[in-house]
Amino acid sequence: MVGMIKEDVKEITRETKDAEFGGKTVLVTGSAGFLGSWLCEALIEKGATVYCVDNFASGLWENISHLEGNENFMFIEHDVSKLLTINEKIDFIFHFASRASPFEFEHYPLEIIDSNTLGTRNMLELARRYNARFVFASTSEIYGQPKVVPTPERYWGYVNPIGIRSCYDESKRLGEAVTMAYYRQYGVDTKIVRIFNTYGPRMRADGIYGRVVPRFITQALAGKPITVFGEGDQTRSFCYVTDLITGVIKLAIAENAKGEVVNMGNPREITILELAHIIKRLTNSDSPIEFHPLPPDDPQRRCPDITKAKKLLGWEPKVKLEDGLKRTIEWFRARRHRE
Amino acid sequence: MVGMIKEDVKEITRETKDAEFGGKTVLVTGSAGFLGSWLCEALIEKGATVYCVDNFASGLWENISHLEGNENFMFIEHDVSKLLTINEKIDFIFHFASRASPFEFEHYPLEIIDSNTLGTRNMLELARRYNARFVFASTSEIYGQPKVVPTPERYWGYVNPIGIRSCYDESKRLGEAVTMAYYRQYGVDTKIVRIFNTYGPRMRADGIYGRVVPRFITQALAGKPITVFGEGDQTRSFCYVTDLITGVIKLAIAENAKGEVVNMGNPREITILELAHIIKRLTNSDSPIEFHPLPPDDPQRRCPDITKAKKLLGWEPKVKLEDGLKRTIEWFRARRHRE
Repeated sequence: MVGMIKEDVKEITRETKDAEFGGKTVLVTGSAGFLGSWLCEALIEKGATVYCVDNFASGLWENISHLEGNENFMFIEHDVSKLLTINEKIDFIFHFASRASPFEFEHYPLEIIDSNTLGTRNMLELARRYNARFVFASTSEIYGQPKVVPTPERYWGYVNPIGIRSCYDESKRLGEAVTMAYYRQYGVDTKIVRIFNTYGPRMRADGIYGRVVPRFITQALAGKPITVFGEGDQTRSFCYVTDLITGVIKLAIAENAKGEVVNMGNPREITILELAHIIKRLTNSDSPIEFHPLPPDDPQRRCPDITKAKKLLGWEPKVKLEDGLKRTIEWFRARRHRE
Repeated sequence: MVGMIKEDVKEITRETKDAEFGGKTVLVTGSAGFLGSWLCEALIEKGATVYCVDNFASGLWENISHLEGNENFMFIEHDVSKLLTINEKIDFIFHFASRASPFEFEHYPLEIIDSNTLGTRNMLELARRYNARFVFASTSEIYGQPKVVPTPERYWGYVNPIGIRSCYDESKRLGEAVTMAYYRQYGVDTKIVRIFNTYGPRMRADGIYGRVVPRFITQALAGKPITVFGEGDQTRSFCYVTDLITGVIKLAIAENAKGEVVNMGNPREITILELAHIIKRLTNSDSPIEFHPLPPDDPQRRCPDITKAKKLLGWEPKVKLEDGLKRTIEWFRARRHRE
């Protein structure tokens, strides 16, 4: 499993060879999570010393345990909603800490709010103190139920402020507002990345309530029913993790993107039902497809307009959906065998 | 001046005679602000013991100084973004602390964010500990540039998350989300009131950048140009302060409004230019009307749909715009003479 990921990490370092991180000191929050762990590993591979911060609210030690012993890997177990002091000059902060799985919105609303509001505030204070560049992991969820799809950054979003999902959507929106306040009031070099659905190895499966790609894959591999919410005609667009991390690293270093907010995701839009069929085919699974009621405020469409990322960073996703799914399935299959 | 307000406070107590506050202990944040000071005074008049909390970020001691000596008036100078302990059982908390004037959005974004995010969190924690009923002062600004006017509570809003005003709009939206999280997760008896433009005695004038009613009145009384932004065809609807405070008190006590969000404001919609002409006429002023560029993200229309407040609380505004403006003008004139 580590071997498969190693190849993917090399792909990221190749794609970001112009972004120099050798000798830099970086802090990544949410470092034991899906995206955070990939980011840490890629930055260490690129020569950075990386302070990896996580409180394991939803992150897993196994995502980063193989980095232990690497002299550029520093782990700090810490809840980002509490103040953090680092006695070393920090060059970059990537604030990626937050539960992000819909079933968690119902059970951990205050934790989610804290990591995105208090946590963002604390990390921006650190960035200000160390004159570090700051990247905030925002989300396509800030667009809510968009009236414009593919959605460009200039669209403001249509979000239910008091619904079950509001703890996530609104705290990410507030995280953006705080980030912009530090950019405007203190001149901190901030970037906001609005991350659309991303998938790949190390996603948590979390049973029926988990995120769609790992859920479908684990269901298909186990021969259990593939659970589609609603009629499956809602769309998403899925970006493979190496593409996303490549984009985030390019964004962090970009001189022409200070104070900017940039969509990142794969603009290929497919329905959830199509996704179920593709995964069934790629896994040679006999699983039936089962339809369940749609959860409240579930967005009908999600597709990024990535014109801005292309223009500012020369970035666009390269991994085709079927390829990325194959790599992901391979990882889940290996993990299944190991278990 | 105190005499004029006394009459208005009596009007509030008459209108809320069914809402029993005798012997209750109440905490009001933002108590030295425009709405907070009216609320404190009305609740004291109704027999409550009121802990008035303010840090004078934008509130004024003169708004509540006349209450000093009243045995039911307790003042605590405190920043709500810091923890607060009260060694007495609290029955109601009204969280009204926040700068709310557009010119402040540019200069104090982080203070505004803190009072609505940390402050709301802290006050909800208190409410949970004391099993107190909680009212959060939200705002029509959470609707941003609404596509539906008059705007009902079920409309989600269209707000720029990264604009100059986002520190206010987004932190009020997040305040709503936190409030709902406490209602859902801990069963706290919460209410959210979305307050539309309210005016009356004790508003701060704040020169050219202040809120529109006190700005127009002070300009008209001084014979200086009345400064209209844009062409003045943007609309607002103006609620007199006694009507608003009556509604807030009814909401706090309502058994049928737990976990609800309710619009409060006057549904009479007028353009800013009309308002300028009415104030010019009521003050017998010779002031010319001067047009200035529109600030960014200034909402084009604002008008509440108050069907829900009528149905749940039997509440609607009673004071006509001209009457309310006359009382307000009288107060500003008296203050002008005193100065």
